[in-house]
Amino acid sequence: MPASSSPSSPTSSSFPSPPPLHHTPDPYDGIIIDPQQLPKDPCIFAQHLTESLAAWRLQHRRGIWLKLPLTLASHVPVAASSGFVFHHAEQDYVMMTHWLEEGKPCTLPPGPTHQVGVGALVLDKGGKNILAVQEKSGPLRGTGVWKMPTGLLDVGEDIGAGAEREVKEETGVSARFKHLIAFRHAHAFAFGKSDLFFLARLEVEDDSSLQPCPHEIAACDWVPLSLFLSQPRFLASPLYACVYDLCRDALPENEGKARPVTAIMGTQLELGFKPGAAWLYHTSEWHHEKHGGKGEGEDGLEEGKGAKKGAGNHERG
Amino acid sequence: MPASSSPSSPTSSSFPSPPPLHHTPDPYDGIIIDPQQLPKDPCIFAQHLTESLAAWRLQHRRGIWLKLPLTLASHVPVAASSGFVFHHAEQDYVMMTHWLEEGKPCTLPPGPTHQVGVGALVLDKGGKNILAVQEKSGPLRGTGVWKMPTGLLDVGEDIGAGAEREVKEETGVSARFKHLIAFRHAHAFAFGKSDLFFLARLEVEDDSSLQPCPHEIAACDWVPLSLFLSQPRFLASPLYACVYDLCRDALPENEGKARPVTAIMGTQLELGFKPGAAWLYHTSEWHHEKHGGKGEGEDGLEEGKGAKKGAGNHERG
Repeated sequence: MPASSSPSSPTSSSFPSPPPLHHTPDPYDGIIIDPQQLPKDPCIFAQHLTESLAAWRLQHRRGIWLKLPLTLASHVPVAASSGFVFHHAEQDYVMMTHWLEEGKPCTLPPGPTHQVGVGALVLDKGGKNILAVQEKSGPLRGTGVWKMPTGLLDVGEDIGAGAEREVKEETGVSARFKHLIAFRHAHAFAFGKSDLFFLARLEVEDDSSLQPCPHEIAACDWVPLSLFLSQPRFLASPLYACVYDLCRDALPENEGKARPVTAIMGTQLELGFKPGAAWLYHTSEWHHEKHGGKGEGEDGLEEGKGAKKGAGNHERG
Repeated sequence: MPASSSPSSPTSSSFPSPPPLHHTPDPYDGIIIDPQQLPKDPCIFAQHLTESLAAWRLQHRRGIWLKLPLTLASHVPVAASSGFVFHHAEQDYVMMTHWLEEGKPCTLPPGPTHQVGVGALVLDKGGKNILAVQEKSGPLRGTGVWKMPTGLLDVGEDIGAGAEREVKEETGVSARFKHLIAFRHAHAFAFGKSDLFFLARLEVEDDSSLQPCPHEIAACDWVPLSLFLSQPRFLASPLYACVYDLCRDALPENEGKARPVTAIMGTQLELGFKPGAAWLYHTSEWHHEKHGGKGEGEDGLEEGKGAKKGAGNHERG
């Protein structure tokens, strides 16, 4: 059959031999290489990868996904020299990708872009003291600043569960998630990523025993609310001052005083302690009235397009 | 000075010669290796890394951060064989870490754990039609399902800005962020990470011209709300049915009918289209009354601890 064996035969180039790297197609015309069946030797991997990429180009495949376990770290430089770039990583693997459609925009989704933090507002049974900690390391070490228990969500963890876990881990106190008070969206945090921080109201189950975590926490106590909420470090920040006002709104004694709303509104506020601003999303507007806001809709707050506010708008009278 | 030159001298082991890898300490007793000044040759890098790790162990350093640019992919296997693991990655680098305090729990923060999606509810000037698209690839390709414009936030992008960008990119329509209607937190999404999805209400600036993105969008139109909200695919999902109810609440014709609240409440709802549930966070409770909820506080919704609800609770009457 001379036609099919000819090197210029269109048949042989349209239907190349199956590529040696095991893979599955994805619904976006892409290829997911099977990490379980990669050749262990980096030289053999290099050869198979080159052949596979040539075949996938002919098939008009677009994005190629290559997950390399830590045990095959030797394959990372091979993939990089074949045109792969990093996508995301977990402790035991790095994902690399290769966009084959030269000249067309890469439509591969980005890897995870955010870390998610949680903070917990927990009052004692009497409602007069707040559960607060002083941190053993990090920027607040040795400053004497009292803060709410906070921490980062694990992958797969719900916001309420994360807040309950952090309170338990840092202070030994059992408390149950009730609702969210507000959340803050900011950028250029750890590793240059973005950060969402959810402030949750938790109900204490037993306020009798404090067991601070010896690794993370220097001190832990039920601190009088008036003392906690008047810490100069936080009042100097328009963002924190607003958060603290929202916390006041959430206190039992202020129940019913906040003006309720039917949407989650956004306000952009200066950080204060460093340059820049962040969006704070919240429902209650009571704090705003108290501090001389211009009233509904007039200053953009109602529109979710609130201009950056200086510290003046949130100073306590 | 024979004492200081003796190999058993405590002075020489307590104060080792400065490690050859340039670095800065961090406030958590860790070390950040300077990626700009790494030796280019992987063998020299291997030698310097070994010496540096020995010195940092003596100094009781805890977490070591090593950022390797794609151009130094050859150093990845070297670091892996010295005990480093992956932490996170961006297109042009992979971050690797090494926890030196053997036997003590690693307190290094996790890398980014979440992707963040945005969806946009945009009505035309008359308020009777919703801006909707049909996707060109992915699971909904060819199904004829109309959906709101959605997309993933870029690193550093605000939620409102992301929603405005996605609407513009997918449909050509200019619209401005007003507020958030609700958000959903779910797990085991892309790459096994968690996912936050924010549904934003946008106000259209000009509804005259539709210019669907040729790469992503198969169709794009102003779809009558009644048609859009009655799509069986979404009504079969308790989660989506609840989201659609919240969208109805947000319509101009329903203004003032939703029962306002002063906190962001959470409800756990079945996905319906696949096994599992997700938390939906919202403010309005009107949808709940409409569908035979047990009333304020009685079913745990008010407490933010709403039990998983079956489809029955959210079927339309």
